[in-house]
Amino acid sequence: MTMVEPETGNPLKTAYQKSVAAYWNDNPNDDRVNTKLGEVDGLFHHHYGVGEPDLSVLEGPQETRQQRIVTELHRLETAQADGLLDQLGDVRPGDRLMDGGSGRGGTSFMANQRFGCQVDGVTISEYQVGFANEQAAERGVTDKVKFHFKNMLDTGFETGSRRGIWTNETTMYVDLFELFAEFSRLLEPGGRYVCITGCSNDVFGERSAAVSWIDAHYGCNIHPRSDYFKALAANNLVPVNVVDLTPATIPYWELREHSELATGVEKPFLKSYREGSFQYLMITADKVSR
Amino acid sequence: MTMVEPETGNPLKTAYQKSVAAYWNDNPNDDRVNTKLGEVDGLFHHHYGVGEPDLSVLEGPQETRQQRIVTELHRLETAQADGLLDQLGDVRPGDRLMDGGSGRGGTSFMANQRFGCQVDGVTISEYQVGFANEQAAERGVTDKVKFHFKNMLDTGFETGSRRGIWTNETTMYVDLFELFAEFSRLLEPGGRYVCITGCSNDVFGERSAAVSWIDAHYGCNIHPRSDYFKALAANNLVPVNVVDLTPATIPYWELREHSELATGVEKPFLKSYREGSFQYLMITADKVSR
Amino acid sequence: MTMVEPETGNPLKTAYQKSVAAYWNDNPNDDRVNTKLGEVDGLFHHHYGVGEPDLSVLEGPQETRQQRIVTELHRLETAQADGLLDQLGDVRPGDRLMDGGSGRGGTSFMANQRFGCQVDGVTISEYQVGFANEQAAERGVTDKVKFHFKNMLDTGFETGSRRGIWTNETTMYVDLFELFAEFSRLLEPGGRYVCITGCSNDVFGERSAAVSWIDAHYGCNIHPRSDYFKALAANNLVPVNVVDLTPATIPYWELREHSELATGVEKPFLKSYREGSFQYLMITADKVSR
Amino acid sequence: MTMVEPETGNPLKTAYQKSVAAYWNDNPNDDRVNTKLGEVDGLFHHHYGVGEPDLSVLEGPQETRQQRIVTELHRLETAQADGLLDQLGDVRPGDRLMDGGSGRGGTSFMANQRFGCQVDGVTISEYQVGFANEQAAERGVTDKVKFHFKNMLDTGFETGSRRGIWTNETTMYVDLFELFAEFSRLLEPGGRYVCITGCSNDVFGERSAAVSWIDAHYGCNIHPRSDYFKALAANNLVPVNVVDLTPATIPYWELREHSELATGVEKPFLKSYREGSFQYLMITADKVSR
Amino acid sequence: MTMVEPETGNPLKTAYQKSVAAYWNDNPNDDRVNTKLGEVDGLFHHHYGVGEPDLSVLEGPQETRQQRIVTELHRLETAQADGLLDQLGDVRPGDRLMDGGSGRGGTSFMANQRFGCQVDGVTISEYQVGFANEQAAERGVTDKVKFHFKNMLDTGFETGSRRGIWTNETTMYVDLFELFAEFSRLLEPGGRYVCITGCSNDVFGERSAAVSWIDAHYGCNIHPRSDYFKALAANNLVPVNVVDLTPATIPYWELREHSELATGVEKPFLKSYREGSFQYLMITADKVSR
Amino acid sequence: MTMVEPETGNPLKTAYQKSVAAYWNDNPNDDRVNTKLGEVDGLFHHHYGVGEPDLSVLEGPQETRQQRIVTELHRLETAQADGLLDQLGDVRPGDRLMDGGSGRGGTSFMANQRFGCQVDGVTISEYQVGFANEQAAERGVTDKVKFHFKNMLDTGFETGSRRGIWTNETTMYVDLFELFAEFSRLLEPGGRYVCITGCSNDVFGERSAAVSWIDAHYGCNIHPRSDYFKALAANNLVPVNVVDLTPATIPYWELREHSELATGVEKPFLKSYREGSFQYLMITADKVSR
Repeated sequence: MTMVEPETGNPLKTAYQKSVAAYWNDNPNDDRVNTKLGEVDGLFHHHYGVGEPDLSVLEGPQETRQQRIVTELHRLETAQADGLLDQLGDVRPGDRLMDGGSGRGGTSFMANQRFGCQVDGVTISEYQVGFANEQAAERGVTDKVKFHFKNMLDTGFETGSRRGIWTNETTMYVDLFELFAEFSRLLEPGGRYVCITGCSNDVFGERSAAVSWIDAHYGCNIHPRSDYFKALAANNLVPVNVVDLTPATIPYWELREHSELATGVEKPFLKSYREGSFQYLMITADKVSR
Repeated sequence: MTMVEPETGNPLKTAYQKSVAAYWNDNPNDDRVNTKLGEVDGLFHHHYGVGEPDLSVLEGPQETRQQRIVTELHRLETAQADGLLDQLGDVRPGDRLMDGGSGRGGTSFMANQRFGCQVDGVTISEYQVGFANEQAAERGVTDKVKFHFKNMLDTGFETGSRRGIWTNETTMYVDLFELFAEFSRLLEPGGRYVCITGCSNDVFGERSAAVSWIDAHYGCNIHPRSDYFKALAANNLVPVNVVDLTPATIPYWELREHSELATGVEKPFLKSYREGSFQYLMITADKVSR
Repeated sequence: MTMVEPETGNPLKTAYQKSVAAYWNDNPNDDRVNTKLGEVDGLFHHHYGVGEPDLSVLEGPQETRQQRIVTELHRLETAQADGLLDQLGDVRPGDRLMDGGSGRGGTSFMANQRFGCQVDGVTISEYQVGFANEQAAERGVTDKVKFHFKNMLDTGFETGSRRGIWTNETTMYVDLFELFAEFSRLLEPGGRYVCITGCSNDVFGERSAAVSWIDAHYGCNIHPRSDYFKALAANNLVPVNVVDLTPATIPYWELREHSELATGVEKPFLKSYREGSFQYLMITADKVSR
Repeated sequence: MTMVEPETGNPLKTAYQKSVAAYWNDNPNDDRVNTKLGEVDGLFHHHYGVGEPDLSVLEGPQETRQQRIVTELHRLETAQADGLLDQLGDVRPGDRLMDGGSGRGGTSFMANQRFGCQVDGVTISEYQVGFANEQAAERGVTDKVKFHFKNMLDTGFETGSRRGIWTNETTMYVDLFELFAEFSRLLEPGGRYVCITGCSNDVFGERSAAVSWIDAHYGCNIHPRSDYFKALAANNLVPVNVVDLTPATIPYWELREHSELATGVEKPFLKSYREGSFQYLMITADKVSR
Repeated sequence: MTMVEPETGNPLKTAYQKSVAAYWNDNPNDDRVNTKLGEVDGLFHHHYGVGEPDLSVLEGPQETRQQRIVTELHRLETAQADGLLDQLGDVRPGDRLMDGGSGRGGTSFMANQRFGCQVDGVTISEYQVGFANEQAAERGVTDKVKFHFKNMLDTGFETGSRRGIWTNETTMYVDLFELFAEFSRLLEPGGRYVCITGCSNDVFGERSAAVSWIDAHYGCNIHPRSDYFKALAANNLVPVNVVDLTPATIPYWELREHSELATGVEKPFLKSYREGSFQYLMITADKVSR
Repeated sequence: MTMVEPETGNPLKTAYQKSVAAYWNDNPNDDRVNTKLGEVDGLFHHHYGVGEPDLSVLEGPQETRQQRIVTELHRLETAQADGLLDQLGDVRPGDRLMDGGSGRGGTSFMANQRFGCQVDGVTISEYQVGFANEQAAERGVTDKVKFHFKNMLDTGFETGSRRGIWTNETTMYVDLFELFAEFSRLLEPGGRYVCITGCSNDVFGERSAAVSWIDAHYGCNIHPRSDYFKALAANNLVPVNVVDLTPATIPYWELREHSELATGVEKPFLKSYREGSFQYLMITADKVSR
């Protein structure tokens, strides 16, 4: 495993950030789901899936059933990342992109394959940085796709240097106002930010017990939907496309309940999606001057 | 023509509002487009269309060509209103809806037909109030669909009384912060607001000359896209669906250039849509408590 | 049981509020802790305790050990409520007080006993309203102490009618900005608000997993400490006394772990208090004009 | 023509800014008014005039009538610039001033003549930079008066380096909050900002059709009067003198209608001034610390 | 003396307001200056003067010298009030005006004389209400000019009922944000507010010792100039005219030093005006919708 | 006396700041109280005292009575500084602290003695810088305790470099929003700020005449209590402890009235404390990220 050094000071400023990093560093085998699904084709995702599953995978021979489920779940996760990248608009090979909370690198590699441009992934898990950079080496794209032991709240990257930025289910670990201030700084005029996230639904009232259960499970802080739009508005990021992916992700979770990789968190996800206290949202926004 | 009385004081507070009312009152035959297209099937719209036009209408016999164009433009406008109503979600017959800037009533009648519920349209044009209420009488829906000589900034309707509100290309005549404060007051918790509007695109920079040309033509004040999201965020209205309808409306305008009803405003519309300084946007937002 | 009618419309506006009311209504025997401890002397509390416990209760005869623990826990809870009332300042018999989230009425009765003045308790649990009003009848103070089926975010009480208001561990069920807006409206100039609450500690970073566990347990939404001071500042409520009660409440929880009434939530309380992600805070603030 | 290089990166960030620069660069002969009037005495203005015109110029020999009108219009424009400079207060030879949107340099040269101090003009028109610097060379003041190809929103000049800044009818091309943030940064404590501008009059309601016509003509974005005071208040710039110059500029426009240089924009100017939807305002403000 | 009853509850809400009322109530002979000068012609002012004094009053016979000074000071105070009324614009006989902090009624009577319209004066000094209403009776204008024992922060007058409002050196007794919120509520759209006030000059830095001396003398709270413009901007009041009257009022104070009515406060006034820490400002602003 | 050079430009930006510096520079013998009391044990304080005085000092031999009073006053001032340092929490020898407005250095030396860590004092009085640095030399702690001719609003110290900062009765000379912005910048995450200050009590209404008398005496600007909490909330500083020290400081002032060092300012202090218009407050706050 490559030694990973923080590039500019220690990116872990608070006890909370250390606890998050520890969760993803020290138990790499604990997030078995991500690992097992990534082994399907070498794209390791840290997010969930969307789209209609092929339920025939539940039928057929018992001994390969679990592998068929894994393959199908992975297909839906890749479809989700593809949908995210569709939103980035016109990205050219000379542009630079950033993946905020890049995990083991799945979406970053897909972006590089699609646009041919440079992608920088940042994560506060040293384990993930090492893993993803090794993947880049295996894929022979270390000149184009780089992973950094950095905090996405304070990347140190150059102002106005990014054509596009995305976060794929990582915003629940940080304050949105701090995050979007940094993204607004990094994006060039007219640059684009795409966010896929689970958010609590303000229409329900306050955060439901089921959503808090998810927070307790991952040690994260799921934000209300309204906070996303307040924080965007406060940071010169203007929505141009918003889609509620909830109906498209519920079948993924229903299938996942059949998997032996199920961790129990499926229950609060499905309960909260169904009761309307939780939503799976994709937001696309443009960077403007004021 | 029915006499129209303002229900609570004079809804025209400023010289500007009087000029807008005069534009739509005194020159009812001047907005020939709306009238001619409305005569197709009795649904009088005051907005533009979306969708792929059937360009075969441009071919065939010369003498009926203009009527074929009119019918096709009207079909696209009705399709636009249908798309708007799709966003209102689960509306029940006992609910109440409001049409902000109801014109001659087209969308209001479509909403009543679809949901069977009560619809109140408000407009500061006394001519339009009279025209639309006569339409309601002809359709036999005066118990369900009513038009009021009211300012949508200050309707006097009861707080929390509305399941849904929409504005179909009328927000460019008012301040968005004032408007959304009123709508937020009127909507019940979880109520929904749908807005279709032309907005200037902040990504372009400031308002282009072409957009100002449209403003000069209609005496309106087109807002930047960012203002919509700032004003929603400031008034407890949280987006759940946002669609850029620009590509879907350009063909409508291209067809309209072929119509003898063309007023010349087609030029700045097409120029600004194409240069990226103007956008045709649909925003759906939920009313939440804070 | 007395029938309880909401005084002005249904105080339950959202699905979340209904879930909170259901939690406290439908499982009255489930919150055994509050009931059992209340039976000690008829003061039913819905909050925790502070002060040095007499650990000798853990020794002595086995058969009365649990009752000794219960009595001691109850003593510490009453001490907490006494400390809260100490902060209310100079309250005279002609003044009116309000208990926001009054539960079964414990603190309300103590306030009436101390100051001789009128106290109105409000809660969204119909069961609690009924229970507490029956207690008032038994105590012969129905003319002075009244409990209302009302939402403390929107009480309908008269502007400027209150000399003092308190919340004893109830603010985690509501939005603080909405709450303090209502309290600021209700307080007379120079009136006083006292708040005892558990809050997440911003110094830790974000909300820890242990705090989310508490949220999941109670279906509540623990706020960060900073939110209290932002919401006070935004609503003309100026702190005059702030005390971190965390060291004073930890022994209470350690004792409670020995009780057969322990529910398991003792673990995340103690973990979060000790790791510094959670605090037990008392804030006293004055109502000023701007 | 001197080659003009942007001093720090390209000052043209958006499509809008490029369109404004193109308007003033590529059609230098199109703004015949400014050129013709400048030829009177070599002071080239890009703003309008104030004061009582000598209407006798309309009488007398036909063949020199146009030249007499030109001379008189130019006299009123110079009077306007003199009035602006009167507001700058006590400027000493060692001070530095900045002209935001300096055009062909007229006001800058007048400031240098009056105070003997250094003046930096900035404009995003390369043509204007070249023209004005050539004028400086002819006048032998290149050591004192310099014109820069810079965006006044982001000059790169040193913080606190300016005793005074003015904008003479140029603020309608930029966002006022961004502009005054930059000016506030540039001014020394107690430094002074003077602004002459056309603004829409909030008392009228919204922007009138006549004002939008002016916007369409120049490709500019006329701001409401209220925005000036909001943006000043948000940026530590405190008014000390405000004058409504509308009555003083109307005669200038009436005279200009008689000139063969009239472009047609006289109509919306006069209409909007007379109907009260537009105002010609001079604001003087001091830079303070908070 | 007529009995004066507060019209809606006690207008004195705080200990501070009681101290201000007491100052003006209980020592009516202490403000000898206002009384003596008022006796000149029956117009009793509570403000200072502007304009060039006739210094010849200092010469001539000793025995009438003081009376000549008094008459001259009074003339300058009346000139100040005239200048204020000039700013009110086009007021018609059917309009209603309000004098915020009306003292013994001087400016109110002048306004009625000039415009023939209704004027309501409000003050928290019961003595002043009684005195001024008696003056109205003597002048036979009780149907048109009325004085009320009301707090100008909360007048209870009808929303939008006022064409114009002024404060003549009374804003230093109240919070400007509260005051302008009330004035903004009272003014009709396009209504006008005129304020003459002494304010501390932010350019000096913080409030000087001399200004605090004035505060201590009158028990008032002089605001910084910046606060006026922030509070106007926050309350939809847009300046249209601002004049620094400091040079015009210094001669008044210099003359007053020669009067036997001098109270000693002349020193800090002159010191602070001369050192630039204090200013005498007139602001005219229009009420707009947002 | 050591020559004192400002370390980064002139820290005196405004006329007001120069007047404050002059007050403390040029009249070093005028603040006899501070000097005389400091001579007791070489700790020179610039703040007042708290705690129960030993009133027996007023009895006994006349000739040593004044010295006994001085010693007792000094004991109470040292007790106050001790109470402030108690709030700093867990400070380790490697940490860095800052004393904002360090005067002659009393509290700085006490902090160094207690924690063994580095302390930087800043003050805009060159006299005080020189005096305090000489004290440091005498005490042999120049490597650990340093005094700087700097403005605490703009220290130039490194971002995030401070474990703790305090101000001991110095915040009345500066704007709180500017001050806390700088302190928030200087503190490390979780760093602590302690403030002891006199503040006007918003509950009284506005600033009383007695408080303005204190302002006039010292040339300072006492802030309302509410401003402290607004400015903290605006700058990511969250209170964790607030104590009203008023009852604990009144006896100090009563004793001081017996001292021959009394300056007359004792009267407004006691009057305002007793009437409730002034308070002596200690606030402890933590630096958080947002």
